[in-house]
Amino acid sequence: MNAKNVIEEILKEKGRIRQVYWVACGGSLIDLYPAHFMMNAESGTVESGWYNSREFLLSTPKKLGKNSLAVVCSHSGNTQETFDAAVLAHEAGASVITLTDGKGSKCDDARFISWVYPWGDGVPTAEVPSGITLLLAAELLRAQEGFAKYDALCSGIEKMDGIVTAARAKVNAELGDKFAEDCAQSPFFYILGSGAAFSQTYGFAICSLMEMQWQSCAYIHSGEYFHGPFEVTEKGVFYFLQMCSGACRAMDERALAFLKTHTDRLMVLDALDYGMDAVDACVRDYLDSVLFYAMNVELRAARGRKFDHSPEIRRYMGIEKY
Amino acid sequence: MNAKNVIEEILKEKGRIRQVYWVACGGSLIDLYPAHFMMNAESGTVESGWYNSREFLLSTPKKLGKNSLAVVCSHSGNTQETFDAAVLAHEAGASVITLTDGKGSKCDDARFISWVYPWGDGVPTAEVPSGITLLLAAELLRAQEGFAKYDALCSGIEKMDGIVTAARAKVNAELGDKFAEDCAQSPFFYILGSGAAFSQTYGFAICSLMEMQWQSCAYIHSGEYFHGPFEVTEKGVFYFLQMCSGACRAMDERALAFLKTHTDRLMVLDALDYGMDAVDACVRDYLDSVLFYAMNVELRAARGRKFDHSPEIRRYMGIEKY
Repeated sequence: MNAKNVIEEILKEKGRIRQVYWVACGGSLIDLYPAHFMMNAESGTVESGWYNSREFLLSTPKKLGKNSLAVVCSHSGNTQETFDAAVLAHEAGASVITLTDGKGSKCDDARFISWVYPWGDGVPTAEVPSGITLLLAAELLRAQEGFAKYDALCSGIEKMDGIVTAARAKVNAELGDKFAEDCAQSPFFYILGSGAAFSQTYGFAICSLMEMQWQSCAYIHSGEYFHGPFEVTEKGVFYFLQMCSGACRAMDERALAFLKTHTDRLMVLDALDYGMDAVDACVRDYLDSVLFYAMNVELRAARGRKFDHSPEIRRYMGIEKY
Repeated sequence: MNAKNVIEEILKEKGRIRQVYWVACGGSLIDLYPAHFMMNAESGTVESGWYNSREFLLSTPKKLGKNSLAVVCSHSGNTQETFDAAVLAHEAGASVITLTDGKGSKCDDARFISWVYPWGDGVPTAEVPSGITLLLAAELLRAQEGFAKYDALCSGIEKMDGIVTAARAKVNAELGDKFAEDCAQSPFFYILGSGAAFSQTYGFAICSLMEMQWQSCAYIHSGEYFHGPFEVTEKGVFYFLQMCSGACRAMDERALAFLKTHTDRLMVLDALDYGMDAVDACVRDYLDSVLFYAMNVELRAARGRKFDHSPEIRRYMGIEKY
């Protein structure tokens, strides 16, 4: 599959796309956020909506129709509410792209443009949902209204693979053990981030830590921090700050300045120290999340080693009925 | 001020509104969410965006322009990034409504349609941001495309004052002391909710508890709970579940069924037990948040009494420079 061809085919049939809905649950929903964020910032014509699958079913946007594109993602391809959301969108006349790793799964269905992606070490960013969704958004922008940042974005996506490889080694050398130790000292803690990368702030909390490490924590938007949450900050409370490298960085910098003097347990993961300076500044906001996801993977593994808790272990997911 | 007249004036000047942007920080941002949620579900023509003020400045939607309406809220009227966002929207040609309790504040500026609202005990829902924003959205829908639920919504807003009064007494009698005790047993806990009411799940966490009680906690969307966060659930971990009364309730019910058997420390605040059955089912999703806000106020006060920590106390906000 190829984002350019997929968008061309859709536009050939539909003429024009007026709404894009990004629909999924949990980790898959997280992967769709940067493309939604980019559409909001960069499109002068297309509306973008980002929905948990069940909420999409229960509070369906009235505009969903033949000029809508639904990009629906389920890693297994069998998440029931995500499949149901894809069917709902299809029946409303929308073009539906399903992204899944599960060949032959429910989401890999002939009613949808089913994009089965590979997964695992060494698969390029351009071939997994975090890259595919940005490319779909970029192709749609370029085809319908022009997108001056198109080349910078495509080049950035290509650069991410090398950036991530180097960053993995660096984060393990510099932060991994310390992070695991901070977790051991902290029955709960706070993770801060902003912009499109806030998706990976949320993802670090709900997927890497709550799900895979049974570690309690909370996610806070850096721009919201000063409007309530900062009152809970004090010495002894651990904060993990993801500093993004694009325009939204200003929010993280403001949080950093306060945290430095109001807690003695602060870990900063600065995207600019981890290779994002190699990416064109105009698209960094949309790509930081790729870096942070990879760092989340390393840090949860480091915690897992210290706690003898493999990130693969589940006690409920896929085991119990719910 | 009157929502109908305000929308009429704007449409007289602009002809048509194509985007509404709801822009604020913290507690004010929370108040704007249900109207955004309603626009997404009910409008066939208007796009709706919901932004933290600083993020709106740093990643401004390209569509912001003369056919946009920005509804900007700052309780004090002097939140710098919110004022800046209002100026940005005004300079882009958008119609700008500023909602503020601060007469003579920065946001109470002649460049904007400045709506100074009263605040305090006994002020009707229709006169504070949570009600005003729903009324603005309803008037816009009605004027531009028709809104079949208009009467149900207006009637629901009127009913909320009585519902909240009765619910205050009930929550204090039934949950207040128990909640304070659960807080005393729980250095950290989880709050769950969904739909438009998720705004008050977030608000309970960041405003009522982190800000006003220095109580650590995390907010989780009920529809996302099964896609990661539920793995952290176990006996001894306190969960507070806000069950909404509209269509989105199905997500809360699923969480309830799991929580009942996976933790021994669960508190449920069911909107249907607290008067929301009196509201037309078709608009309950948009009004639950008014009830939950009032309940958050009572519960934080109950905690405050037990901990001898008045919800009025701040150590940083408005005291330090940040």
